[in-house]
Amino acid sequence: MLKIAIVGATGIVGQQAIVSLLGHPWFKITKLVASERSADKKYIDALRDASGSIRWWCPEELPGHIANMVVEEAASFDPKSVDIIFSTMDAGPAKELEPKYAKTTPVISTASAFRYEADTPILVGGVNMDHASLLAVQQKNRGWKGFISPKSNCTIVGLVVSLKPIMDKFGVKQVVAISLQAMSGAGRTPGLSAMDMTENVVPYIPGEEPKVETEPLKILGKLSGKTIKNAAFGITATCTRVPVMDGHMVCAFVQTGKKCSPEDVKKAMMNYGKDFAELHLPSSPKHLIDVTDDPFRPQPRVDRDKGGGMTVTVGRIRKDPVIENGIKYVCLAHNTKIGAAKGALQTAEYLVKHYLKLVK
Amino acid sequence: MLKIAIVGATGIVGQQAIVSLLGHPWFKITKLVASERSADKKYIDALRDASGSIRWWCPEELPGHIANMVVEEAASFDPKSVDIIFSTMDAGPAKELEPKYAKTTPVISTASAFRYEADTPILVGGVNMDHASLLAVQQKNRGWKGFISPKSNCTIVGLVVSLKPIMDKFGVKQVVAISLQAMSGAGRTPGLSAMDMTENVVPYIPGEEPKVETEPLKILGKLSGKTIKNAAFGITATCTRVPVMDGHMVCAFVQTGKKCSPEDVKKAMMNYGKDFAELHLPSSPKHLIDVTDDPFRPQPRVDRDKGGGMTVTVGRIRKDPVIENGIKYVCLAHNTKIGAAKGALQTAEYLVKHYLKLVK
Amino acid sequence: MLKIAIVGATGIVGQQAIVSLLGHPWFKITKLVASERSADKKYIDALRDASGSIRWWCPEELPGHIANMVVEEAASFDPKSVDIIFSTMDAGPAKELEPKYAKTTPVISTASAFRYEADTPILVGGVNMDHASLLAVQQKNRGWKGFISPKSNCTIVGLVVSLKPIMDKFGVKQVVAISLQAMSGAGRTPGLSAMDMTENVVPYIPGEEPKVETEPLKILGKLSGKTIKNAAFGITATCTRVPVMDGHMVCAFVQTGKKCSPEDVKKAMMNYGKDFAELHLPSSPKHLIDVTDDPFRPQPRVDRDKGGGMTVTVGRIRKDPVIENGIKYVCLAHNTKIGAAKGALQTAEYLVKHYLKLVK
Amino acid sequence: MLKIAIVGATGIVGQQAIVSLLGHPWFKITKLVASERSADKKYIDALRDASGSIRWWCPEELPGHIANMVVEEAASFDPKSVDIIFSTMDAGPAKELEPKYAKTTPVISTASAFRYEADTPILVGGVNMDHASLLAVQQKNRGWKGFISPKSNCTIVGLVVSLKPIMDKFGVKQVVAISLQAMSGAGRTPGLSAMDMTENVVPYIPGEEPKVETEPLKILGKLSGKTIKNAAFGITATCTRVPVMDGHMVCAFVQTGKKCSPEDVKKAMMNYGKDFAELHLPSSPKHLIDVTDDPFRPQPRVDRDKGGGMTVTVGRIRKDPVIENGIKYVCLAHNTKIGAAKGALQTAEYLVKHYLKLVK
Repeated sequence: MLKIAIVGATGIVGQQAIVSLLGHPWFKITKLVASERSADKKYIDALRDASGSIRWWCPEELPGHIANMVVEEAASFDPKSVDIIFSTMDAGPAKELEPKYAKTTPVISTASAFRYEADTPILVGGVNMDHASLLAVQQKNRGWKGFISPKSNCTIVGLVVSLKPIMDKFGVKQVVAISLQAMSGAGRTPGLSAMDMTENVVPYIPGEEPKVETEPLKILGKLSGKTIKNAAFGITATCTRVPVMDGHMVCAFVQTGKKCSPEDVKKAMMNYGKDFAELHLPSSPKHLIDVTDDPFRPQPRVDRDKGGGMTVTVGRIRKDPVIENGIKYVCLAHNTKIGAAKGALQTAEYLVKHYLKLVK
Repeated sequence: MLKIAIVGATGIVGQQAIVSLLGHPWFKITKLVASERSADKKYIDALRDASGSIRWWCPEELPGHIANMVVEEAASFDPKSVDIIFSTMDAGPAKELEPKYAKTTPVISTASAFRYEADTPILVGGVNMDHASLLAVQQKNRGWKGFISPKSNCTIVGLVVSLKPIMDKFGVKQVVAISLQAMSGAGRTPGLSAMDMTENVVPYIPGEEPKVETEPLKILGKLSGKTIKNAAFGITATCTRVPVMDGHMVCAFVQTGKKCSPEDVKKAMMNYGKDFAELHLPSSPKHLIDVTDDPFRPQPRVDRDKGGGMTVTVGRIRKDPVIENGIKYVCLAHNTKIGAAKGALQTAEYLVKHYLKLVK
Repeated sequence: MLKIAIVGATGIVGQQAIVSLLGHPWFKITKLVASERSADKKYIDALRDASGSIRWWCPEELPGHIANMVVEEAASFDPKSVDIIFSTMDAGPAKELEPKYAKTTPVISTASAFRYEADTPILVGGVNMDHASLLAVQQKNRGWKGFISPKSNCTIVGLVVSLKPIMDKFGVKQVVAISLQAMSGAGRTPGLSAMDMTENVVPYIPGEEPKVETEPLKILGKLSGKTIKNAAFGITATCTRVPVMDGHMVCAFVQTGKKCSPEDVKKAMMNYGKDFAELHLPSSPKHLIDVTDDPFRPQPRVDRDKGGGMTVTVGRIRKDPVIENGIKYVCLAHNTKIGAAKGALQTAEYLVKHYLKLVK
Repeated sequence: MLKIAIVGATGIVGQQAIVSLLGHPWFKITKLVASERSADKKYIDALRDASGSIRWWCPEELPGHIANMVVEEAASFDPKSVDIIFSTMDAGPAKELEPKYAKTTPVISTASAFRYEADTPILVGGVNMDHASLLAVQQKNRGWKGFISPKSNCTIVGLVVSLKPIMDKFGVKQVVAISLQAMSGAGRTPGLSAMDMTENVVPYIPGEEPKVETEPLKILGKLSGKTIKNAAFGITATCTRVPVMDGHMVCAFVQTGKKCSPEDVKKAMMNYGKDFAELHLPSSPKHLIDVTDDPFRPQPRVDRDKGGGMTVTVGRIRKDPVIENGIKYVCLAHNTKIGAAKGALQTAEYLVKHYLKLVK
């Protein structure tokens, strides 16, 4: 069993990372790491707020052996004490601490701090596993024994997974993407206000649209020598927040390179990702994409947990009446599973087995 | 005071029509008309369901004098007994009964039955008042003393009101429109299921997208002789249902004819509709469009009641990073006020004063 | 017109006070007062948060003349510059500042700071207007020209209004009260978390149950010489928070002093408060209590705005199958209207006209 | 493996029964039975509504082998073809068909049809297992080889489970119970209206209060010869519907027979049900009751799934300030798990192992 540290363990993504790792066949959580405020406390006590309530946000119960672990402080944590580090810190501390850890130890990160570095891939399960070899460039450039492998933004996961088979088969020339994003994406302390989100929609999420308009181009880009050549199409996005707990929906309008029917697109999506699924990584679902013919689907509450929250559901694939070679559809991905901790775990599994070859 | 009948008076749109007309300076409800099931009952009794509950859906209280009116049957109702008929029937009975009424009496309708007839305008307050003269063609064609003037679909109101100033100033070449629609648009008996709409989004509304893709082209078209020449651009839409009570939001991506900045568009929108507002129709707001600089707005619960539910709120106007000459923005309109009964009332006010000249 | 200052004007209750006073026949807002943070700013700028959004929470639009008023600082505000002060501060600053203001000027307060002082009444419109004479005791005791007249807790308003006619006619021996309280009662900055309140109930509101168990006894008590003798029955309460915007519902189980039927109770409630209603105070509704026979009512979203948010709706009055001389029912009161600013305004109207006799 | 039929398989409770039985160590679903409308269709096709959507309501995926089973018709179904029948029919057909099935085969029922028969126990896991011997009386009375064992009403499960240890240790003299019930309790076709349940509470559930006021007395009663002597205390209830998906909360005010502290009650609850838990029935949780010290808990969304939805969570145990020997608390039970199909399954497991002795 490989020893895992979760850094940022008290936050909501850290909690989800803990849950994702419970009963894992290869990984064992041996360290919980957080900020000074939580250091040297038992984990369950570090979760208490001012009123004494335990702020454990996951529906799964907090196991006793985790509850009783003593939290270490991120600033003084020894990365060599574990085999792999899951970093779920905010961008600020991530920027400072992840490189320190990476000197000796692989870091799988849900933070955005290193996503846009030229020598750093943004790996999305099944989409761009070949980009993993860029980590060797990163290691060499920076003189690290470990590396930093950041997760993508949570909103784009459904989009890149569904665009990939379209791009491979028919090419993509332009994408219009409108997200209807769940509230859990805004975190928990304090998170969104109940009165703002009751029977309401907020049509703006600070900082989100630029990410949706750029990250997919890197993820869908081509590795060429020591760098990634971005995919050569444009994305325009409007990102909205809707009163949904979990599950980001994206309405996509795609101009393809060559003409294709909705049936063609459906077939491409259903055939997609078989190679990756056959690696049988513990966190991978049977199907990366599930295409539904029910026009009322995908729905966030109903479809988000498909494949353990790791399957992207696509529905309403239809010919666009206006855009040349246009296809429109709706996709849904669980923002806190495939879009965050569990997606990061899947990447870790891939890297551990196929890049680091620590598991056979 | 002109005598008004509301046909379909027990339904939710009929109820909203009643509320819109309370205390009106020109109009007085003298007849409530509904299907056989309600005929000859006091209105308040016609609203009772099987359990005896009164199914009055409006937040405003039902006034006693309305509650006690005896409902007449639509099939045998004498249209000559009133000056104007508000028809809020479903499309089926509307198709059959509205032409009978229109033989003698002007009919303002919220039904879709006649929207697509070549000799029938779809009037939207401030947008296409010149189309009213097509009603004379309709009257002549059909030998009617009255006419049928149908309301547009509720989802497109915010879109056509906001597109009109753009079209006039800069031209429109293509529109991508995604709606986040309120639940009240689905009616009340039974309406949507609570369990479908709890922390969920349904990405399909049967029959809605074709309307959004076509009606605006007629409304924004040019009257030319005895017919309307549709606007010459394309619209593609995805329509979704979100857990909001009232207020349809549309995220629009517009390719304009000539280059324009967000500032230009804002100015065009803010200057828009002054002539119409200066007619001081009782149901018109001071501003047809309110442009907000707050990036978190418009929000349905917060902005829908602006201008008595008759103002369209536009926000997030910005340059599109991808679409040539592209502008993107978010607009919001109250689907059961400007988008239904109160919008129809505004049309009635215009026609009564400026077309029929029954009011000075 | 009497000159009014609103102290605590930027908070949600202060905003509601502003809205309640718009177009008032006797009162005119001449001063807006708030903490140091807001002082010397235009009101609209004082409402902006860090991102520049204007945190105006009321559905009513903020009028331009209010938006442009310059806010004064509470600590240095001159109470003699106005005729009446509305204090909507939190309990802490209220405790300190209200006595300073009261030296010269009547203070109507929504804070709890002075509710439990022996020489201070808690006036609830129509329930205990005779307690107003205790203000003379307060003035004498403290050497004030003004006074402090605090509003009751918002949760108990529906309860005391509905208990009063029962107490007067049949006596009350014991009350079990369970509240289902709206989210607006928790304020706005930050208020409740959206993720805590989505399809959920929180069965605890810190500090609330002791207030529900004690305040009604003072309000329903008897003025006797220079003090109030509390009503001689017990109340036990459980207070819960439900995902409702506005409107506190209370399920009451009342043991009466003598036997009475649900019909008796209904009649007592419907006859209740006629004297007070006939004072025709501007903020008073026609009926203090509306008793509904619809078993599915009262409902918060549907009934809260009855009588301009100043009517208490009571439903489901029925004989208790277990409690001796027991009656059970459900009541509903708008927590931010009758339960807060508008309720305080009604008290102010009463005091200005019938105690201070400043209006005839 | 015992062969199981689910009768009423297409309804929401039937679906939950299917999910509860997947992977069960003793039971195997061999028959799906429903009304004429569904007969002879593949199960997945029987679930389709008019629009073709598959009305499968459970978050768990419908397994392929279930989807492809052909549904039999309830009226002609041969009960001898299985070992145990799960009946999830409505009360009407249950009244007619369950006795036919029971002639030969044990019937575990979620319907209310036979709950109030003198020779029929209402078994609740861990509470009244000794009542099972009444089934022999039923069999003898009616000449049945099988029997009918009905489930209790879903609302009372949390109440009876939490009252049982109080009754055993301290006695119970009177109970005031207010329920805040989830929407899933109202079923799905059509179920509750979204517009009724959006930021709203409905303070009435037809037929519910009489059940809450009577069923617990039978369940907590004493088996005495051939009948059950009801528990000798009174319950008064108000039942409300809140916008929650799953999980019925009850606020209880209990007058105990002898004085006891909240600590005493907590201890009694935590010690409760150990014998039953040690039977290690497949559907039993480790703890029948979980007592939380967090005053903000239990919460339906957060606590309902504890123990696989089979644990009752109790919180806020405190001394009543008014009721003599009064204890008040809040309890929560998952209405569609312990309160319906899975609770029925637990009963079936008990009966199969300890009454029928079909499993060792």
